[in-house]
Amino acid sequence: MASADLQLDHGKLRHFLSIEGLNRALLTEILDTAESFMSVTDRTIKKVPILRGKTVANLFFEASTRTRSTFELAEQRLSADILSLNVDFSATAKGESLLDTLRNLEAMQIDMFVIRHQDSGSAHFFAQHVRPGVSVLNAGDGQHEHPTQAMLDMYTIRHYKQDFARLKVAIVGDILHSRVARSQIHALNLLGTAEIRVIAPRTLMPVDAETLGVQVFEDLERGLDDVDVVIMLRLQKERMRGALLPSEKEYFRKYGLSQERLRRAHPEAIVMHPGPANRGVEIESSVMDGSQSVILQQVSFGISVRMAVMSMIVGQSGLQAGGDA
Amino acid sequence: MASADLQLDHGKLRHFLSIEGLNRALLTEILDTAESFMSVTDRTIKKVPILRGKTVANLFFEASTRTRSTFELAEQRLSADILSLNVDFSATAKGESLLDTLRNLEAMQIDMFVIRHQDSGSAHFFAQHVRPGVSVLNAGDGQHEHPTQAMLDMYTIRHYKQDFARLKVAIVGDILHSRVARSQIHALNLLGTAEIRVIAPRTLMPVDAETLGVQVFEDLERGLDDVDVVIMLRLQKERMRGALLPSEKEYFRKYGLSQERLRRAHPEAIVMHPGPANRGVEIESSVMDGSQSVILQQVSFGISVRMAVMSMIVGQSGLQAGGDA
Amino acid sequence: MASADLQLDHGKLRHFLSIEGLNRALLTEILDTAESFMSVTDRTIKKVPILRGKTVANLFFEASTRTRSTFELAEQRLSADILSLNVDFSATAKGESLLDTLRNLEAMQIDMFVIRHQDSGSAHFFAQHVRPGVSVLNAGDGQHEHPTQAMLDMYTIRHYKQDFARLKVAIVGDILHSRVARSQIHALNLLGTAEIRVIAPRTLMPVDAETLGVQVFEDLERGLDDVDVVIMLRLQKERMRGALLPSEKEYFRKYGLSQERLRRAHPEAIVMHPGPANRGVEIESSVMDGSQSVILQQVSFGISVRMAVMSMIVGQSGLQAGGDA
Repeated sequence: MASADLQLDHGKLRHFLSIEGLNRALLTEILDTAESFMSVTDRTIKKVPILRGKTVANLFFEASTRTRSTFELAEQRLSADILSLNVDFSATAKGESLLDTLRNLEAMQIDMFVIRHQDSGSAHFFAQHVRPGVSVLNAGDGQHEHPTQAMLDMYTIRHYKQDFARLKVAIVGDILHSRVARSQIHALNLLGTAEIRVIAPRTLMPVDAETLGVQVFEDLERGLDDVDVVIMLRLQKERMRGALLPSEKEYFRKYGLSQERLRRAHPEAIVMHPGPANRGVEIESSVMDGSQSVILQQVSFGISVRMAVMSMIVGQSGLQAGGDA
Repeated sequence: MASADLQLDHGKLRHFLSIEGLNRALLTEILDTAESFMSVTDRTIKKVPILRGKTVANLFFEASTRTRSTFELAEQRLSADILSLNVDFSATAKGESLLDTLRNLEAMQIDMFVIRHQDSGSAHFFAQHVRPGVSVLNAGDGQHEHPTQAMLDMYTIRHYKQDFARLKVAIVGDILHSRVARSQIHALNLLGTAEIRVIAPRTLMPVDAETLGVQVFEDLERGLDDVDVVIMLRLQKERMRGALLPSEKEYFRKYGLSQERLRRAHPEAIVMHPGPANRGVEIESSVMDGSQSVILQQVSFGISVRMAVMSMIVGQSGLQAGGDA
Repeated sequence: MASADLQLDHGKLRHFLSIEGLNRALLTEILDTAESFMSVTDRTIKKVPILRGKTVANLFFEASTRTRSTFELAEQRLSADILSLNVDFSATAKGESLLDTLRNLEAMQIDMFVIRHQDSGSAHFFAQHVRPGVSVLNAGDGQHEHPTQAMLDMYTIRHYKQDFARLKVAIVGDILHSRVARSQIHALNLLGTAEIRVIAPRTLMPVDAETLGVQVFEDLERGLDDVDVVIMLRLQKERMRGALLPSEKEYFRKYGLSQERLRRAHPEAIVMHPGPANRGVEIESSVMDGSQSVILQQVSFGISVRMAVMSMIVGQSGLQAGGDA
């Protein structure tokens, strides 16, 4: 997909659809802008007027609490007017109807769409069809990308570990089906990460994984060896029902992150998870709540990162927007 | 129903329940006020402080995306505080309970109610029981009226065709059950439309249609002959299950608006539809997306028209309210 | 539960979890502050900037229309940013997950949680685990307490009857399971009510009722004799299915408040109900709509009382906050 052309307008961010197609300078600008918003979310009046009088529509065709809540809070803290729709999948199963939904909302003078949809490419589809001046943010499209999640993950890594060029990062779990992993791998590569490892059972590993610029491990303990960052993925329970996995217990035995296994990583390694985690399936409770876990910080950073992306799209940086709403 | 008395207070709009009972001057004032709001919805900061500190409750006893979203956006752009309730029909099946719902919400100092309900007369019922100073807007009551829809339709017609006195307007579809058609016919008559035609199979035509001040057609092609405006109605699929209609395919064959049939109308005729349309049932996709279709413009105008009605009710016109919120 | 320690910080309100553990001075301060907010909710612009730039999360694990709506309106009128979640019970059945929900929301810089949950003690659990600076309001926890309801009831009683030291107050209905009754009894005692009576069939009366500082009646008519305030409780229909009660009809015959029975009370007695009432089950329609009923006034007062509690928690009283938002 030629998302670079779609996403950028003379080098400026117009849509935010995928990490693929972006460049290191732009990702760094997002991280820097997000950093300037951290002071907004920490202060007494958590509000700036950057999206005042603009309307953001949140279209969630898939259920979500965390992503949707952090987007809504980011929008409120940017002073936007907000239209949130839980769209019934059955009513929009056909691409034609998805376009009708878009056209109708666009007629309501929506300035920005945040869309989560079960079909890969749905955010691109929206971006290809909106009018000039209207922007689309991908909040997760099928098994394709989840770029704001990846950027909050990058923010977290940079916050705790600084220089990507010195880091070994391991992503553990269902690499094959994960839009989070796909976006993370692109971002880690663009930011010049020294070593990216993906760790998964063979049934959950893409056949062409090596072509993504990563090292492939089937053995968790060998994969964790000396890494600085461990990113655990959520195991979708529906994978159990198919032939892909034996059982939760068996999965935890081989791929669950226990305290013992975490000792294989660098002693100061951080542990991340996009949430919501299945305690005792992909991650031991004591690791999740342990001193190396930065899982809740990821959530906090997520609001600033989403504020950053939205403000860059409307052409304002957080630094200039420090005034009260 | 003596809705004129209810709706007007010394000639000023107090409630907005039905087009029946209003007069041409007032409809024209709504259209003029809406026009002044078009500049608000088009500008960068789409907000005026007309409803600031006032509370609007949206009570939707029937599902709705388009009407509800445009009402909510209109309220946000007027700076209202908003309480939106999806009311469970089963919990309020009795008239007594509907009144309890009203009384309880009224006790919350709601200034304005927007109500959609499956019972004809429900908005009037609300208006008869609210306290002085509280207003009711009908967002569709049973098979009775849907007055804001009719006004956005009138806005659309005036925008594209100016003088009602020169126009032939055809309404096509389920005239019998349509609150939209009923409101449109009243509005077109009040605004002095030269000729109003209703086109429907006999089973979907009111027996006393002629008394409404319209010309009745059973044949679509004859009815479309030389008209300036074609308004297609949504075909409720549940009509198919009863004895009223044979099948979708058969309906389209006889009453669907195809490009070929549209050629019977004036070459510059506009095509309207309240949405959501059933493509291939009452309207061909190519007509819906064609150059004569103004269906999406109707949606845009709908926000300004709803802003206009609400601002007139609180005693302010859009012209005076040009300042930023 | 040592809720006093949790709720108060150097005598100032930090959380609002239960009436038990508070003191008369603080309850009186809530009532006085609420009184100052009545002018806000009555004026044209019903808004003050007390919670501007702060985020309130409404977590309703149990369905609610009245309590939730009045909390949301109170928050809007205090100019808060609002995140409202209908939390699926099944997803959070385990205490561990409830804590995960809390931790994740807290990471979103929520300043105040309003929580309704089917488990007694859940609000305390939240309060024990939030960070410094974050507050928790109990909107009903299991069969434990519903303190904002009790305070709006106290407000209503003081408004109509002034001096608690001269009053006889009767609470009628399912005392055993009612969190409302429990909170009311604590509040009435703290405010020095002359006589508190609880009236219920034996199966719906706590075995240790006398220890609560109340007089116990099984006979409704004797219990109502000469009281100044009658508080009817909602009869949960599910009690009928068990062995606790014979039938609605039988319940009304013995414990329903009819006009005839109300004559046993003082001629100027007021009738209260937390809503929603079952007309014809615990209360006759004519009583509910009669001149002694103040049931709708309770709803109005509820918004001011909730505004008062929230503003006291952030350290501002309504009197100082009279300015426009």
